[in-house]
Amino acid sequence: MILIFKKDATEEQIQSAVHKIEHLGYTPHLSRGAVKTICGVTGDDRALDASEFDQMPGVETVLRVLKPYKLASREFHPDPTRVTVGGVGVGPGSFAVIAGPCSVETEGQVESAAELLQKCGLKLMRGGAFKPRSSPYSFQGLGEQGLQILSAAAKRHGLTVVTEVLSEYDVDLVGRYTGVFQVGARNMQNFALLKALGETRTPVLLKRSMMGTIEELLLSAEYIMKGGNPHVILCERGIRTFETQTRNTLDISAVPVIKRLSHLPILVDPSHAVGDWHYVAPASLAALAVGADGIMVEIHPDPSAAKSDGKQTLTYEHFQALLGRMRDLAPHVGVAVY
Amino acid sequence: MILIFKKDATEEQIQSAVHKIEHLGYTPHLSRGAVKTICGVTGDDRALDASEFDQMPGVETVLRVLKPYKLASREFHPDPTRVTVGGVGVGPGSFAVIAGPCSVETEGQVESAAELLQKCGLKLMRGGAFKPRSSPYSFQGLGEQGLQILSAAAKRHGLTVVTEVLSEYDVDLVGRYTGVFQVGARNMQNFALLKALGETRTPVLLKRSMMGTIEELLLSAEYIMKGGNPHVILCERGIRTFETQTRNTLDISAVPVIKRLSHLPILVDPSHAVGDWHYVAPASLAALAVGADGIMVEIHPDPSAAKSDGKQTLTYEHFQALLGRMRDLAPHVGVAVY
Amino acid sequence: MILIFKKDATEEQIQSAVHKIEHLGYTPHLSRGAVKTICGVTGDDRALDASEFDQMPGVETVLRVLKPYKLASREFHPDPTRVTVGGVGVGPGSFAVIAGPCSVETEGQVESAAELLQKCGLKLMRGGAFKPRSSPYSFQGLGEQGLQILSAAAKRHGLTVVTEVLSEYDVDLVGRYTGVFQVGARNMQNFALLKALGETRTPVLLKRSMMGTIEELLLSAEYIMKGGNPHVILCERGIRTFETQTRNTLDISAVPVIKRLSHLPILVDPSHAVGDWHYVAPASLAALAVGADGIMVEIHPDPSAAKSDGKQTLTYEHFQALLGRMRDLAPHVGVAVY
Amino acid sequence: MILIFKKDATEEQIQSAVHKIEHLGYTPHLSRGAVKTICGVTGDDRALDASEFDQMPGVETVLRVLKPYKLASREFHPDPTRVTVGGVGVGPGSFAVIAGPCSVETEGQVESAAELLQKCGLKLMRGGAFKPRSSPYSFQGLGEQGLQILSAAAKRHGLTVVTEVLSEYDVDLVGRYTGVFQVGARNMQNFALLKALGETRTPVLLKRSMMGTIEELLLSAEYIMKGGNPHVILCERGIRTFETQTRNTLDISAVPVIKRLSHLPILVDPSHAVGDWHYVAPASLAALAVGADGIMVEIHPDPSAAKSDGKQTLTYEHFQALLGRMRDLAPHVGVAVY
Repeated sequence: MILIFKKDATEEQIQSAVHKIEHLGYTPHLSRGAVKTICGVTGDDRALDASEFDQMPGVETVLRVLKPYKLASREFHPDPTRVTVGGVGVGPGSFAVIAGPCSVETEGQVESAAELLQKCGLKLMRGGAFKPRSSPYSFQGLGEQGLQILSAAAKRHGLTVVTEVLSEYDVDLVGRYTGVFQVGARNMQNFALLKALGETRTPVLLKRSMMGTIEELLLSAEYIMKGGNPHVILCERGIRTFETQTRNTLDISAVPVIKRLSHLPILVDPSHAVGDWHYVAPASLAALAVGADGIMVEIHPDPSAAKSDGKQTLTYEHFQALLGRMRDLAPHVGVAVY
Repeated sequence: MILIFKKDATEEQIQSAVHKIEHLGYTPHLSRGAVKTICGVTGDDRALDASEFDQMPGVETVLRVLKPYKLASREFHPDPTRVTVGGVGVGPGSFAVIAGPCSVETEGQVESAAELLQKCGLKLMRGGAFKPRSSPYSFQGLGEQGLQILSAAAKRHGLTVVTEVLSEYDVDLVGRYTGVFQVGARNMQNFALLKALGETRTPVLLKRSMMGTIEELLLSAEYIMKGGNPHVILCERGIRTFETQTRNTLDISAVPVIKRLSHLPILVDPSHAVGDWHYVAPASLAALAVGADGIMVEIHPDPSAAKSDGKQTLTYEHFQALLGRMRDLAPHVGVAVY
Repeated sequence: MILIFKKDATEEQIQSAVHKIEHLGYTPHLSRGAVKTICGVTGDDRALDASEFDQMPGVETVLRVLKPYKLASREFHPDPTRVTVGGVGVGPGSFAVIAGPCSVETEGQVESAAELLQKCGLKLMRGGAFKPRSSPYSFQGLGEQGLQILSAAAKRHGLTVVTEVLSEYDVDLVGRYTGVFQVGARNMQNFALLKALGETRTPVLLKRSMMGTIEELLLSAEYIMKGGNPHVILCERGIRTFETQTRNTLDISAVPVIKRLSHLPILVDPSHAVGDWHYVAPASLAALAVGADGIMVEIHPDPSAAKSDGKQTLTYEHFQALLGRMRDLAPHVGVAVY
Repeated sequence: MILIFKKDATEEQIQSAVHKIEHLGYTPHLSRGAVKTICGVTGDDRALDASEFDQMPGVETVLRVLKPYKLASREFHPDPTRVTVGGVGVGPGSFAVIAGPCSVETEGQVESAAELLQKCGLKLMRGGAFKPRSSPYSFQGLGEQGLQILSAAAKRHGLTVVTEVLSEYDVDLVGRYTGVFQVGARNMQNFALLKALGETRTPVLLKRSMMGTIEELLLSAEYIMKGGNPHVILCERGIRTFETQTRNTLDISAVPVIKRLSHLPILVDPSHAVGDWHYVAPASLAALAVGADGIMVEIHPDPSAAKSDGKQTLTYEHFQALLGRMRDLAPHVGVAVY
């Protein structure tokens, strides 16, 4: 931590801060500049709250030196992490393709998706049974029945299910059916849920909130990891900006930023990021080229009949064409698509 | 709903959309322009999903005519609503001042705040017992013990408690101690919580998410109201933008916008919006002048010792000075401060 | 400036940065923490580019201690500045109301506005002769003829003109007609224009860009002041965010932030900020209460016939009602409206 | 254009709007819904200002059906455009790599860059002689001398120069040295400059503003094209958002969006988008995979000694490695890198 004093801070104010730092068990290092005095604080100050100091008279600003997360950081864990999901690894050398419907609607719909994934040699199927919807008048999901449909179809086709859990009280229920817990964008800072997932050992796919900073995403991962569950997969899914041509703005450079700050794998969800199927294939190719560890996309046999997100959903034909293009590019990016 | 067809849409594509509209029980009205054809849809289309159409061949865009919320809208409820809380009304003619600590820390701290509020003639005390914090290393609140402290102090001083509920499973517990449920910004779209609050008849203070649009805020109010609880008070608390001098950007014009779109009362939380106590007083005066129905502010006997949010917290002296200024201005804005 | 070294920076890398600092004439102060080493740099480093260091091996981040502007800062100029315009002062104790049409359209229109302002006891009239428009198909302004109309009407009614200058090559031309140069939001970083205005001694009304940070606004003021023209008036006019109910988001707390960082007067342009006349009056009252030094609003005898910005323009009746409300509030805020 | 009337609009108000539409030469088509009435307007309404109607009593909203640009749109020009620059084409089938220093500093520096580009088989060299800088204390560029250095080095190595023009008054001067005019992000809405460039026949590289929507970018292209110059190349260079880990947020999906809306070629500037050389290579590969027509990157023999933007500048070694990777991927994306 670094304290920057005001231009006209008195010696007494400076000493008062110095004493407080010492009192809390840290070591102060004063540098007196021509204009301002600064004070470096040494010791592991992650638990130190900046607001302990920024209210003191004479103090202008308090800057942090250490990143506020530790378990999720690459500084303390230099090697990249590979999270094993249903027998396959998500992380370096692989490009995981998770596909499936936005919402589980019928057995036939899920069966057709599972069949397609198996035929394509993929292993991970997404599908929503509990749907968070902005409007109370929209379809809210099939609940446990949806989980049963998903899980049965996955079993028939050798797939692992990835599905969303909305509340800490549903962790047990959802956990009976899923291989990966998905934390949706709206729940990135549902800390009770994160803590509950930290107590399981099931992999968690943690989606970035549409207004979450990268630092906040890593802090949310830290919640899960601090609880004892190291199997966290991050997912960029677009942030909210002023641009309205796309549903959100895909922050593609979040991928290399996260690769540098953290050892955790990072996927991209192009469907929610762009919100329009026309842009899903190019965004998926960009995710592959930029170095993401995979994508999660929405597919439907007839998107115009989908009960949610039809606009951003690929048909099976478009999805297979995209998969072909990704498999063609993958060796040149140094990964295998599965 | 209005469908706009592509410039080169075929007659067959247009007729196919027309048939689908009729099939769903609505009435289509075609207008053929020099460049494009449009089709108005009449009937109450709130339950109609735009994605039913925007995927159809030949369709370029689908626009909504009706607002997606109804119970929260002024169109269907022209008179402003007054929500009664602890014997006083929040709404037209009043300016409610809700004050108290960010987090409940000790009995003494809460007692001193309650004493101050009573002395100042105020009626509503805020305080957090369950604290959602970005970092797992930050103070997480006292839990039920905090609720007991709050509730006891409120009783001694004739105040009503406003405190946050984080999960639908805590509604009963928190409800035993509070007069108003606060839904925090991070939970604006925690739909399970909104539904649970819709089943109570206790007033709900619903804060806008830092990433929530005004329309989404009103849709979240609609969730609560649709459940049967009409006592919703909205709260603007700053949105996330590129500006970093303030914690968030106070969207002051959200107040008159919401007044025009909805009949519900709307407060401002200047503390979280600006994140620095220097700006809390001017922002509070702006809230009063712009027509808000009140404010919610954080106060502490010694902000530099506060366990959370110290930087944005007013001392008792600053708070009393602010209250004096607001009481001076209030008659000229046509409201009474309480 | 403060250098933060990487966790694994070598002693050689640290010494290499230390030598560079000394070589450039500054003094380094090393603090070695348990995890990371930091190095404070003393001396006036405003001219020092962070990129001199942040590319060096072993360096993780470079932080600035001094604000990058000086002439515009309150640190170096503690007393607030009052800019005199047409015989009246803009700054502490006053609340300047600048009103007039968005675009100059006809002599009659401008004459009626000037008449109204004189009748209301106001002194400053706005009006656009050169209009920057997003679309090449929109009305582009009357040019010099518009300036003549503005200037003649102002003279007849004892007013001072405030009008926009779009290019450094127009400074002489526009200067012949105007009392205050307005720099529009799109030109906040037109540095050639800022430099040219720095060479005049005419007051400049500098509008914040819709995506300009407060720091960038103050740096743009610094350009003008560094050229020798200290008469700068700042203007907040809304920033671009994800919210679409208003044209921009009025950043009302920018006013107290700027008051704290700078000694320059700061106005608010509610018309462009909210983009809808329904919200202009509340936003103006908020500007008054928050401590702004004035507002600039668009008025028109018949907004629905205006050639630009009709939606956000007040009728004369609405404007007079607003003025009455502001004059009623002003004594309680400690200012005089003129 | 479509008018949506208020729920309680009177028949007289509706008829008044209908008459105005007819009076302006367009055809109204009324659809009366259960809740609201709408009125479609047919005819080419691009020149019609929405504000003609949205102020009328009884009118709630006015929606546009036609896009406000025409020459830049794919609707009116379905085939993609190829802009020829220095003998090579920018557009379908090619991936143009424009590289060079941020600022021209010395002859040696530019010569070394030109030599490198020629050796790599590239054709286009960027370099800034007039530099727009946020701070008046930063390096402002060498001006015409910089242009001479650029142009001479380009000639020696068979390259075409791409350099920025800041003002309409510099078009002749800069035009004597450059093969492509670059319009910087801060000038995207400098309409006088756009008009002046519309009168030349030299290709223009138009960068998106950090606050510009895609629609505004296309409207700015329309300004140039309406003047008679069809040789416009667009460039995405990052938009401003709340995320601070990167200088801006690269809006990678703007590429397929623009490909769908417009026939003009679109490049990506990864250097300004991400602002940190660590992320420039992944962002460049993403640009290639997403379907951009090229990139523009900053290179320097010693970035830590660069007078501007050192942090985001690639060394020659890193640049060559990136070029190798792009040439490896390019055939799989269906383009040739030059």
